[in-house]
Order: sequence, then structure tokens, then C-alpha cells
Amino acid sequence: MSDRVLLDYGSGGKASQRLIREIFLKHLGNPGLNRLDDAALIEDLSGPLAVSTDTFTIFPLFFPGGDIGSLAVHGTVNDVAMLGAEPRYLSCAFLLEEGLDMQDLDRIAASMGRAAADCGVQVITGDTKVVPKGAADKMFINTTGIGMVIADPAPSGSRAEPGDAVLISGTMGDHGLAILTHRQGLKFETDIQSDSQALNSLTTRLIREVGDVHVLRDPTRGGLATTLNEIASQSGCEILLQEDQVPVRREVQGGCSFLGLDPLYLANEGKFICILPEDLASKALEVMRSHPAGRDAALIGYVREGQKGRVVLRTSLGGHRLLDMLEGEQLPRIC
Amino acid sequence: MSDRVLLDYGSGGKASQRLIREIFLKHLGNPGLNRLDDAALIEDLSGPLAVSTDTFTIFPLFFPGGDIGSLAVHGTVNDVAMLGAEPRYLSCAFLLEEGLDMQDLDRIAASMGRAAADCGVQVITGDTKVVPKGAADKMFINTTGIGMVIADPAPSGSRAEPGDAVLISGTMGDHGLAILTHRQGLKFETDIQSDSQALNSLTTRLIREVGDVHVLRDPTRGGLATTLNEIASQSGCEILLQEDQVPVRREVQGGCSFLGLDPLYLANEGKFICILPEDLASKALEVMRSHPAGRDAALIGYVREGQKGRVVLRTSLGGHRLLDMLEGEQLPRIC
Repeated sequence: MSDRVLLDYGSGGKASQRLIREIFLKHLGNPGLNRLDDAALIEDLSGPLAVSTDTFTIFPLFFPGGDIGSLAVHGTVNDVAMLGAEPRYLSCAFLLEEGLDMQDLDRIAASMGRAAADCGVQVITGDTKVVPKGAADKMFINTTGIGMVIADPAPSGSRAEPGDAVLISGTMGDHGLAILTHRQGLKFETDIQSDSQALNSLTTRLIREVGDVHVLRDPTRGGLATTLNEIASQSGCEILLQEDQVPVRREVQGGCSFLGLDPLYLANEGKFICILPEDLASKALEVMRSHPAGRDAALIGYVREGQKGRVVLRTSLGGHRLLDMLEGEQLPRIC
Repeated sequence: MSDRVLLDYGSGGKASQRLIREIFLKHLGNPGLNRLDDAALIEDLSGPLAVSTDTFTIFPLFFPGGDIGSLAVHGTVNDVAMLGAEPRYLSCAFLLEEGLDMQDLDRIAASMGRAAADCGVQVITGDTKVVPKGAADKMFINTTGIGMVIADPAPSGSRAEPGDAVLISGTMGDHGLAILTHRQGLKFETDIQSDSQALNSLTTRLIREVGDVHVLRDPTRGGLATTLNEIASQSGCEILLQEDQVPVRREVQGGCSFLGLDPLYLANEGKFICILPEDLASKALEVMRSHPAGRDAALIGYVREGQKGRVVLRTSLGGHRLLDMLEGEQLPRIC
């Protein structure tokens, strides 16, 4: 094997086979993937399924708290979990630029393998394309996840109802600020780490132990503010968000003040919003706080009739202002 | 909407929502996709499933006989069909370069919508990422397909057996030569078109009407020669291929002679290899030839004990030579 990715590795010929065996099967292999057929055979899924797809373009490939490989597992696993499902299988498609460092590819595939094992999913089918130098920036990864829906009815962004409480599983803005500061080479007193992590074991516990969960959604691109706007719009209700209840790490708060950013609009990769009837909120918080991924969970707002599709922020000074959806791009290639 | 794709369209904010509504939902929408949740809910699949993923990087985006949109549907639908399955659902992830012509994106999404409708699949979930100008070449599309396996046992590259006949559904090399000549601006007397097409309705008929199909596989990258080598290797047997039985269009044969290419190594995007017991071959050929996608079907060889993993070509002059797997890249960005 060359120490750089060559065009030959995407040809479908012998060189491709070597790459598949020596990198991908080594780190991601299992009896299904090892068959190397055009498609994977799944024999053990029943009932309603959840399917989600995501292409990861994050720059740089390695960042504090993760890399594109672990992120590509966590991101899709989390999207499947948000439908009240247990993620079981992933497809994984690599798009590589000619000349990519082979050691980087090996590290990233190894990281994907560990992340997949940690959250209980198998990579069952894949694809590798290599494009000539300059036609892509190093590496993009698409993962598509399949899971079994265990909630009935499944949570949906359209199921928030007046009287529901809005919970968040942890601190906001860690991923966005970690990528931004790392990219710019900024140093703060404390290193800011991405929160990239899988949420499926916690959402499964919530569904099994608390029951009637109306909405689960992870506030990734666009952050908490944009995601709450989507939910308010899909559900046709208003959401009141209490600013001083939203957990934000001190160092993230500091970094945001310094850079003029709002943590409510920064991307997260290991947190979720949970909306459910208010009388279930304390039970849900208890379950969340007993799990490593939900230690900093908090009740941050309520759903009410109000004006459809609107998110109102009650500021820490007691004022109210409209919290709008992000218009455009705050930070490209954040995920 | 701008007439160019802006970074904002990949932000997850309002601009993204506009792009999703005005391009993707317009052409690909259905009740499942229109819900816009993090994952899609599938309620009507049962039994074993087939899953396949592919990222399409073809250059140029539009070519004689198709475009990246229709190809991204056909390619994945065919891979699912090769497991003896009826493709039902696709996920679709767009990776766009900032500055891409919005009309091109609209045409490609429309072409995907038509292709999906024609072969009976629905796009149920999607993703859009926009990367800064120069970080990708115009557009890449990942599709992941899910289908219900109707063959029992499912066909597999590992099920070829001595005594089986090897059939091909039509002419070889059309796609590869069409892309190559179009890219180089070469003109021949007759225009060479890509064979990009969906094969699922024909493979379904084969399975239902002929039964015991051992192997189905589409000879895409690396062509017929490379794919037969994969099968010989997976099945641990030898395949004898009769050169003069392999259907090749006259104009493709001419173009290959002119350019010094071998049609057995050129990519196809609308053909498949079918391996099954010899006594079922004539029935299978009858079914194939009665279908528009199998009009030129032919019996091209046999599986025998021989030497494991080897493909032997009986040339039209009566000689024998080893037909090896493609080593490296014949033509980058062919699919």
C-alpha cells in the first residue's frame, strides 16, 4: 500500500480491494460487511424503521474531542435515535482526494470502528471513491443509519403541544466553538472540546422509562435557536425559552463574548432537545442526569399556544425578544 | 433564491429551508420526506432487507444518456436489486460546491425525481451540505437504498457453482466509452450513449419467473472482466468467458479499437451478470430478452471447477488467456 491515497484505490480493481481489506475491513469488518456483495443483507429488523443520512465535510479532519470518523458515526446514530429508534446499522461511503495521507485514513477508519462498537451499531455496506487532486478537500464521509423504532408513536418535530416542557440534555455551543477556535488557532485558558458523542443509549432509556416523549431533536447546524424554530414551525405553536436556564460552559460563554458569537446559534454534536408533557419533566430530568451524556440536563422552556412558529426568549434581565432562525451560514464545514 | 448555490444554503437555517422547499421537495417530495424530521419513518417493510450505498462523483454532471441525478438513482437501485431485492426507498445526500449553477441543481433534482418515479422508489430522507468554492468539484451525490429481499436464498457473489451458466443482460462498455468520448470532445459517426438505467423490474421478473438465481451483479467500475474476477474469487471457482459471445455495440467496438481500450474493462451502468444452473439458462434468456432492459441478453460463459478465483477468456480465434482483474484506475470519476 502506498503512503498516499492514489486514484487507483477508487477504481474497483485490485488496488481498491487492497484498500478495502487493509483499511476498511480491518477497522470496520463484520460478517455482513466481509461478504463484499453489492448490497448488505439484514435479516433481524422488524417493525417500523428509522432511516437517516448525513454527509460529513468537517474541516479540519481532526479536532479537539473527535475527528471526522467518530463524528460521522455519532451524527447519524443520533439522527436515527431522534426518531425514537435504536440505531443498528450504518452504511459508510468515503470520498477521498488523491494524495490523502494513508495514515490519516487509517486513523479515521479506526476511530469510526471504535465509535460504532461503542454505540452498538455495525457498518454493513460501504463505498469508496477517489477523485483527482483538487476535486475534493481531503475527505468527505457519508453515513446512512437504520434503526428500529421503539417509541409508539414516534417522536416528531410536529408533536410539540401547549403545556409541554422543553428540556436540553447538556451544555450548548461546545462543538461550534471548539471547531472555530481550533481552526483559527485561538488559545483560551481552558481547552474547548467538541461534545461529539452518541446519544442513543440515553434516548432509549428515556423512551423506556419515561414514555410519552413528543419531540427529540439534536441542535446541530444552526444551534438551539434554529432547531427550536423548526419545531415551533412544524408543530404550529410557540416556544418560550428561558435564557438563564440554558446550560453553557463558562469557557464557551467566555469565548463567545470574546468573539461576538451567541451560543444559542452554535452547533452541537452530542446534545438533544426533549419535549414532553410537563408532568413528566422531573422524571425525564432524573433519567437524563443519571447518564453521562445528560449530566447537565436542564428544563429550559415551555410550549404554549401563542403565535404559531415563534420562539420567544425570556432574557436573564427579564425582557422578552423574538429568537429568530439563523438566516445563513455562521461557520461552514462545521459537520 | 439566488441563481448560484451559496454557502448559506447549507447552513441549516432559513436559506437551507428555502433550498429544500424550492428544489428538493418540489422534485422529490412525498409525505415521508415532507415531514422534515431528522430521520424518516418506514412502516411497511418486512422480512430480510437489502441495503446499499454509493457516492456519485461523475464528471461532467450531464452526459449523453443521463446525468448525475438519474445515475445516482439507477446505480443504487441496481445494487439493491442485485441482492434479489425490490428497491423501495432511497436516502439522498447532496454535497454542493459554493457557486454551483442553481439551474443545474434544479435540472438534476428533477431528473432524480423522474428516475425514482420510473423505478418505483421514494426518496425518504436527505441531507445538503455546501462547501466553499474549491473544496469540491461542483456536485457529489450519495444515495443509499433499501429494499425487500424476494429471493430465498438471496443471490450472492459467493454462490456461483460449477455447472452454472453465465448470462449478461446486454451490451458491454457503453457507459464507459460514452463518458470518455464526451469528456474528450471526440465525435464518432454514431453518438455513443450511456446505458444508465434501472434493472429492478427485470431482476424481479427473473427471480419470480425463473427462480434459482445464484449470482446477480452489475459490472460497473472495472467492467465485466473485473466483476467476473470478483465472483470467481468469492465463489472459489473458475469462470470461462467466451469472447465472441459478449455483446458489444459496433460503434463501441470501433471506438475501443480507435482508442486502444478493451470493452471488457469498461464500466456499465445498466447491465447485469446473472449466474444460474445451466438448465435454467434458456428460460432466463427468454425472460430477459422480452424486457427492454434485456433485449441483447446473451449466454457468455460457464462456471467450472478449474483453478479457484480465475477467469479464462476463450478468444474469438479459439485461444485461451487469463482475464485478470483491473489493477488500477482506467478512467477516474466514471460514476
